[in-house]
Amino acid sequence: MGKLAKKVAMVGAGMSKFGRHFPTKRNPDLWVDAWIDAVNKTDNGIEPKEIDACYVGNFTADLFNHQGHLGPQMANLVGLTPKPAPRFEGACASSGIALRQAVLAIASGVHDVIAVCGIETMTEVPTTIVTDALAAAADTTFEYPAGATFPGLYAAIASAHFKKYGTEPEDLMRVAIKNHKNGSQNPFAQMQQTIEEIMKSKKKRYESQGRDVPDWKDEMDFLKSSSNPYIASPLRLFDCSLITDGGACVFLASEEFAKKYTDTPIWIEGTGQGSAALSLHDRDNITSFIATREASRQAYEMAGLGPKDIQIAEVHDCFTIAEILAMEDLGFYEKGKAAQAVKDGETALDGSRPINTSGG
Amino acid sequence: MGKLAKKVAMVGAGMSKFGRHFPTKRNPDLWVDAWIDAVNKTDNGIEPKEIDACYVGNFTADLFNHQGHLGPQMANLVGLTPKPAPRFEGACASSGIALRQAVLAIASGVHDVIAVCGIETMTEVPTTIVTDALAAAADTTFEYPAGATFPGLYAAIASAHFKKYGTEPEDLMRVAIKNHKNGSQNPFAQMQQTIEEIMKSKKKRYESQGRDVPDWKDEMDFLKSSSNPYIASPLRLFDCSLITDGGACVFLASEEFAKKYTDTPIWIEGTGQGSAALSLHDRDNITSFIATREASRQAYEMAGLGPKDIQIAEVHDCFTIAEILAMEDLGFYEKGKAAQAVKDGETALDGSRPINTSGG
Repeated sequence: MGKLAKKVAMVGAGMSKFGRHFPTKRNPDLWVDAWIDAVNKTDNGIEPKEIDACYVGNFTADLFNHQGHLGPQMANLVGLTPKPAPRFEGACASSGIALRQAVLAIASGVHDVIAVCGIETMTEVPTTIVTDALAAAADTTFEYPAGATFPGLYAAIASAHFKKYGTEPEDLMRVAIKNHKNGSQNPFAQMQQTIEEIMKSKKKRYESQGRDVPDWKDEMDFLKSSSNPYIASPLRLFDCSLITDGGACVFLASEEFAKKYTDTPIWIEGTGQGSAALSLHDRDNITSFIATREASRQAYEMAGLGPKDIQIAEVHDCFTIAEILAMEDLGFYEKGKAAQAVKDGETALDGSRPINTSGG
Repeated sequence: MGKLAKKVAMVGAGMSKFGRHFPTKRNPDLWVDAWIDAVNKTDNGIEPKEIDACYVGNFTADLFNHQGHLGPQMANLVGLTPKPAPRFEGACASSGIALRQAVLAIASGVHDVIAVCGIETMTEVPTTIVTDALAAAADTTFEYPAGATFPGLYAAIASAHFKKYGTEPEDLMRVAIKNHKNGSQNPFAQMQQTIEEIMKSKKKRYESQGRDVPDWKDEMDFLKSSSNPYIASPLRLFDCSLITDGGACVFLASEEFAKKYTDTPIWIEGTGQGSAALSLHDRDNITSFIATREASRQAYEMAGLGPKDIQIAEVHDCFTIAEILAMEDLGFYEKGKAAQAVKDGETALDGSRPINTSGG
């Protein structure tokens, strides 16, 4: 694997508020929100005429919104027609793939400035359809018909991790507590509440309704109660990510163009992508993601850096166990050791290597 | 728009037989067929270990097969796990986008050899669902709920072209006659029959059933009969592409690697992509596709070539009118002049610039 033939930088970024927006806002509206935010946050501004292409990352608007072919729609909304507007899909990694392909497109010499869009509107359909649509990212020939929903598959992964490394339910809860705390400080996050705040507001509501007020001593006590019901054992409600609507926009530029937009471009030092068998039953090991290992291997190699050099990371945490796996597979911790690091506060906002500072 | 930083070549290609394969074969099986064909047709062979990534083009397996996230699935089937396996979607241009992004990825310096997959299995669902799924590529907020299916939208385009340029139904029929003739000679085509052969076999069947045998003088006469019913006026059955299942595989390589696989690589001289408003009601003009004009402008510029230099072309012909529009928007003929060129045989297999020699 080679180096990028040209340097590429991030010169602006923005996002919409995340949360339940349907039917007030759908993909087009959320993309425009993100675009305006990104334009406003680009130091010297940016005009549609300066942008070569619109790269759109989206998992499955087909199933959630019955609208495929999002690229041209998104490009048109912000004045980019008739420029290239491909859409990229790779389940939860869709927008990451759009970003990576935009980096490669600039490095290829063909484009100089690209707007990258990440977009999903998932609340348009009821929960049963959401479950069904998310399952389309897994193996729908064998596993899903056998009852394996997405939470079910991650539950199997968590159980295997518990058995192999002694990870415990409390380890997952600590990830949720940390990420909710981070989210509470992020104005774009869907839930801007710590678990403690959720617990307290629940107590208050019970009190105002004249019901018995639960005797939760702390967050951990709350998370072990029936207020945090099992979704797919051992995963409980607060181990699972929310169904959400939201959009993000990033502007990338080649070295020659980056300085036009900002004096402090963020250079892309490395990029990598991996893949794995779609079905868990085809994998040698379900407590480690080879796709993550391969992607980070490529990125480290390109950047000339290693896990020890990484000071902060945003990783995929669709379920709490996913964050633990990512921390291990990215090489931050040995297999089976990430849970202890979370317990020790190393991944907290003020820790030695904060993870998912946005709330995840 | 710049040049490719590195030269890129096509070093092998193959495909599956196209047609109705479900339920005997679905996407995974068709991809393997195409892969094997491509490996066999690569002069010096090619091994999975030599390939850096698997780029998958697919429109909407989500809706047709309830299977998203195809990239890793396709990569795994041919021994490419854990390599990068993004999926690209852009309606009917999905595989073209996958090919283009693979070209850019090699030019970027990051990859040297990429397998590009194009795949669809559309016969898995009944025709009403096919119509509904295809509509997801159009504007599903305003146009589709108002009754505009994909044939309906192209019918509006054809009507406008008729009115503006005097194009006639016979002009469309000549495109169908030519393409069916080409398809009859392509062992991978779904219908390996000329319109004349279809007409004759229909006569024979009527005769064997003891029914009145229609008095069709020639193909044109047949196409004007009720045996070629209207789908969306002025488009009739033989103006519309078939619902099909099939896969294609192309191997691309950088200059350093191309010679390893063949002594006669096909160099990519130019690539371009455009976009347009998704909805026809948002377009200034529906008798010309600005996306095609922009894409070809980019490709011509990169290649240092013009329409006059093009000797042969495969263009999108989901409906016969689409081929006429493409011929004009690619600059092969002035607007309104393509139909006459078809009539004069210029686009036939033995014409001056054959179009859709595969059958389209």
